[in-house]
Amino acid sequence: MTKTLLLDCGSGGRASQRLINELFLSHFDNPVLRTLDDAAKLDIKGPIAMGTDGYTVAPPFFPGGNIGTLAIHGTVNDVSMLGARPRYLTCSFILEEGLDLELLERIVASMGEAARNAGVLIVSGDTKVVPRGMCDKLFITTAGVGEILVDPAPSGSSARPGDAILVSGAVGDHGLAVLGQRDSLSFLQGVESDSAALNRMVERLVLEVGDIHVLRDPTRGGLATTLNEIAGQSGVVCMLEEEHIPLHDAVRSGCDVLGLDPLYLANEGKLLCFLPEEKAEAALAVMRSDPHGGEAARIGTVYAPEAPSRPGQVILKTPIGGKRLLSMLEGDQLPRIC
Amino acid sequence: MTKTLLLDCGSGGRASQRLINELFLSHFDNPVLRTLDDAAKLDIKGPIAMGTDGYTVAPPFFPGGNIGTLAIHGTVNDVSMLGARPRYLTCSFILEEGLDLELLERIVASMGEAARNAGVLIVSGDTKVVPRGMCDKLFITTAGVGEILVDPAPSGSSARPGDAILVSGAVGDHGLAVLGQRDSLSFLQGVESDSAALNRMVERLVLEVGDIHVLRDPTRGGLATTLNEIAGQSGVVCMLEEEHIPLHDAVRSGCDVLGLDPLYLANEGKLLCFLPEEKAEAALAVMRSDPHGGEAARIGTVYAPEAPSRPGQVILKTPIGGKRLLSMLEGDQLPRIC
Repeated sequence: MTKTLLLDCGSGGRASQRLINELFLSHFDNPVLRTLDDAAKLDIKGPIAMGTDGYTVAPPFFPGGNIGTLAIHGTVNDVSMLGARPRYLTCSFILEEGLDLELLERIVASMGEAARNAGVLIVSGDTKVVPRGMCDKLFITTAGVGEILVDPAPSGSSARPGDAILVSGAVGDHGLAVLGQRDSLSFLQGVESDSAALNRMVERLVLEVGDIHVLRDPTRGGLATTLNEIAGQSGVVCMLEEEHIPLHDAVRSGCDVLGLDPLYLANEGKLLCFLPEEKAEAALAVMRSDPHGGEAARIGTVYAPEAPSRPGQVILKTPIGGKRLLSMLEGDQLPRIC
Repeated sequence: MTKTLLLDCGSGGRASQRLINELFLSHFDNPVLRTLDDAAKLDIKGPIAMGTDGYTVAPPFFPGGNIGTLAIHGTVNDVSMLGARPRYLTCSFILEEGLDLELLERIVASMGEAARNAGVLIVSGDTKVVPRGMCDKLFITTAGVGEILVDPAPSGSSARPGDAILVSGAVGDHGLAVLGQRDSLSFLQGVESDSAALNRMVERLVLEVGDIHVLRDPTRGGLATTLNEIAGQSGVVCMLEEEHIPLHDAVRSGCDVLGLDPLYLANEGKLLCFLPEEKAEAALAVMRSDPHGGEAARIGTVYAPEAPSRPGQVILKTPIGGKRLLSMLEGDQLPRIC
């Protein structure tokens, strides 16, 4: 294998085959992938959840992960949020001519490891190589399918007045970690991405606790944007207690310096869970016993909209008793965070 | 909506939501997509076929299609080649800041139409916007799932000595059409991409004709490369009759001028079918009665490897009785053809 990626590696010819055999097959190996047909035959029972995400994060490596582990964790989590057990992933790579092959191999190896750790198989894929300057190093798109474990499945439109709102841990780490790496901000050195697969936590929540109304991972746009989406889809009001929202000190101080609101920063290993009040403690116990849920907390409650509040609003109660509306941002200033 | 795409449209905030609502939901609309959860709940029964492809074709519009229709047809076809009925697709867009929104809408609208024509639903998606210069206009990755209709499913490893080799029509049109558009080659004006969904043809082949050993669409690398893959996976020799390989005059003459071999050019609406000799006529009749199979032909036969031929070889018999080895190319000179 040469040291940098050649255009020929995306041609479908021998150079492509070598890349597939030496790189992807060796790190992703499993019997389904090894058939090398145009599509993979899956051993899976319905009903099925299916999701996809494209990953363009820059730089490709950041504290706590890289674009490849993110592509595995993100899609595993998307599928999980339907109360499903993710089983199979596909991976599509768009690579820039001249890409350092050692860097690509490190990414691919870590993807294989992340998939094994999450208990999912990478069963099919695709590789395109575009000429130098036509993309920035590499983009990865994963799609996943899983078996839905409960009926009804959790949905953003199923929040009900009285539901407790839980978050599985501290927020804002991923967004700030990528920003720190990209802009070489030394005062953010202690901040690591929370990138992680949440499928085992989800499985225990839906099977052991049950009656989960909403599950969603607050990725792009952060906790505030995701709660706005849920409140809008369900036609309810979410009331949050600011002092209960878990936040690492390094994230709090980093955001203070940069003028960023951690509630709008991306997370890649956290979930929001809405469920009936009386089940909240059981759900928190499950989260806290999971390696990725040690700092889980109840952060709020769902209300029926009553004037002056309107359906879809997210309201933050401050420790001194004030209230402010957490609106959905128009856009944001952190592109390529995932 | 403004006239060009802003970075904010990929933020996950309000600008993202408007793009999703005004553009994607309006053109892809269906009840599954409309739930807007992180993943889609599918009504599908196993066994299931799953495939993915990334599309980076340049330019995005070419005679006979565009990057969006290609992304629908290509993944519908990949799933179909397992003898499956494609049902659901996901779409992931990576868009360049400043992209002409009118161009994006034309692409998205044509994708919606292509999906409806193929009878598949686009059920989930993702949009990332990267800063200007970080990708070339747009890349689209689709993934698809379908219900496998027969057992055993066709596979590249199931070719058997004695099998007839059929192709569903003339080869080389797609690759040459994209090249002609990219390089403004006026003598290629009559060449159009064959981009098309082959799922209905496949369904009739596997259910009405049956006993289909191999189905594969000869995309990147063309007919020659795909046959090399199949011969290698199955450990057989493919013997082709050059004079029976359907070829449009404009493709033949265009390739002569450019010094290209049409057997190595990409197709996006053709399939190769291997099946027992005695079923060949029935399969050709099915192909020819399909809108995309009018020029279907039997182009060769599978043999057991006997010295001097070796397993995995593809041999072309010329009209005057000569034989030449059609090897798999090392690479090729036509990047970003799909």
